[in-house]
Amino acid sequence: MKDAAIGIFDSGVGGLTVLRALAERLPGESFLYLGDTARLPYGTKSAETVSRYAVQAAAALVKRRVKLLVIACNTASAVALPALQAAFADIPVIGVVAPGAQAAVEAAPDGPIAVIATEGTVRGGAYARAIHARAPHIEVLQQACPLFVPLAEEGLTDGDLAAAVARHYLEQMRKAAPKCLVLGCTHFPALKAVIASAMGPGVALVDSAATTAMAVERQLKSSGALRDGGAPAIQFLVTDAPDRFARVSRIFLGAPVDPGAVEPIDLQ
Amino acid sequence: MKDAAIGIFDSGVGGLTVLRALAERLPGESFLYLGDTARLPYGTKSAETVSRYAVQAAAALVKRRVKLLVIACNTASAVALPALQAAFADIPVIGVVAPGAQAAVEAAPDGPIAVIATEGTVRGGAYARAIHARAPHIEVLQQACPLFVPLAEEGLTDGDLAAAVARHYLEQMRKAAPKCLVLGCTHFPALKAVIASAMGPGVALVDSAATTAMAVERQLKSSGALRDGGAPAIQFLVTDAPDRFARVSRIFLGAPVDPGAVEPIDLQ
Repeated sequence: MKDAAIGIFDSGVGGLTVLRALAERLPGESFLYLGDTARLPYGTKSAETVSRYAVQAAAALVKRRVKLLVIACNTASAVALPALQAAFADIPVIGVVAPGAQAAVEAAPDGPIAVIATEGTVRGGAYARAIHARAPHIEVLQQACPLFVPLAEEGLTDGDLAAAVARHYLEQMRKAAPKCLVLGCTHFPALKAVIASAMGPGVALVDSAATTAMAVERQLKSSGALRDGGAPAIQFLVTDAPDRFARVSRIFLGAPVDPGAVEPIDLQ
Repeated sequence: MKDAAIGIFDSGVGGLTVLRALAERLPGESFLYLGDTARLPYGTKSAETVSRYAVQAAAALVKRRVKLLVIACNTASAVALPALQAAFADIPVIGVVAPGAQAAVEAAPDGPIAVIATEGTVRGGAYARAIHARAPHIEVLQQACPLFVPLAEEGLTDGDLAAAVARHYLEQMRKAAPKCLVLGCTHFPALKAVIASAMGPGVALVDSAATTAMAVERQLKSSGALRDGGAPAIQFLVTDAPDRFARVSRIFLGAPVDPGAVEPIDLQ
């Protein structure tokens, strides 16, 4: 299984920020990325629906013989990780919430820690639980920021409009003076500059991408599954037409994706 | 079939603006409304995926014996109406694009006419075709306004943020000085005030809800299917959990929906 790809599942394009961190940290590995673009976004949907979608999507990756599953979508990690780990007990399934919580606790060991995320992630409370599992005394503040998702997908990541939306969501949170802010949705790193500006100085911004890549490396090393040769490859699967995915991916991956390298599949 | 309900299909909650106009114009009729909340939004998805979803959803309404189908979703009307009319040839299928185009041509017989809509509706060009079918000489301007959808669903329908987003999308269109602006997405009537302000005076804003209700009345009268007695009823079907639908529906229906009156169904 060493030469098998690492499977990465996301609701759409945002998880490409996680793919990017993984490819940088593990340049010898191959990756198979699946974006459920026909059913995105997950952030406004119920935990039951997100779990059902996530298990269907992960099954498509497992069928193609991946050696490890990364759940890049924060909402799916927050509400569907137990269902995924139960459904695919034969391979490691790593979500982004625990690595993100770990990064936050390291950045602000005494808190307070602020978490911004989708409606679904905030409602589920998984970040607060993961932070409290590591440091029960830390005060955790949460805020859903749903408009950040379409803003990032439209490429409106700076300028007056992005700044106004960031101020709208973060005004109250800024007053609580957190030491660290978790970017608890894969879309939010694209808006890092306006979020930092709205929060003011002295707030460490962390996202899950880098710490998730570290967790994946640790897991592969400990199980002897780290790849030791061969040509790495990155392939993309999507559930809607490839063109919009290829176009919007540039915002999150930092490089364009060739629409010809994107294969449409049907999960239903 | 006179006593059968009128089926209304939408991608989610926005179509409730069409239900509202229908219930006002046809107070003796019963309505069965289906919102495909597990797969919304449709506006960023491909024509193929939207057509597939629309036919699945309409089949669920037809199975419950509706006498007429209203496609309240502009995107589905714009890209899937021929597929729906072919799949359900036994009952009238009425979309919102033709009635909206008719209202626009009546409001501005010499143009120019501006159309704001989702990415999918703009890309498909159905409004321009429907306007030109009625008045080939009219200049048609189009602009996709994707952020209006989540803004409306969050209830951010007035205030500085909504005004800033409206200015962002409409600044160029205002310079073209259209005589009429079509609100080509069911979410947009909720933002009517900020849209009117961004366009300036002298621009007639039209949406499809009232003219679609007139088209439905005309169709029922001509086929003798107008209901002539009995207690009217409104029922709701959704594909995701009912709670968010019931909460957000108030913005579009103008009245709260009891979550108990909303039945979850599975289309897949």
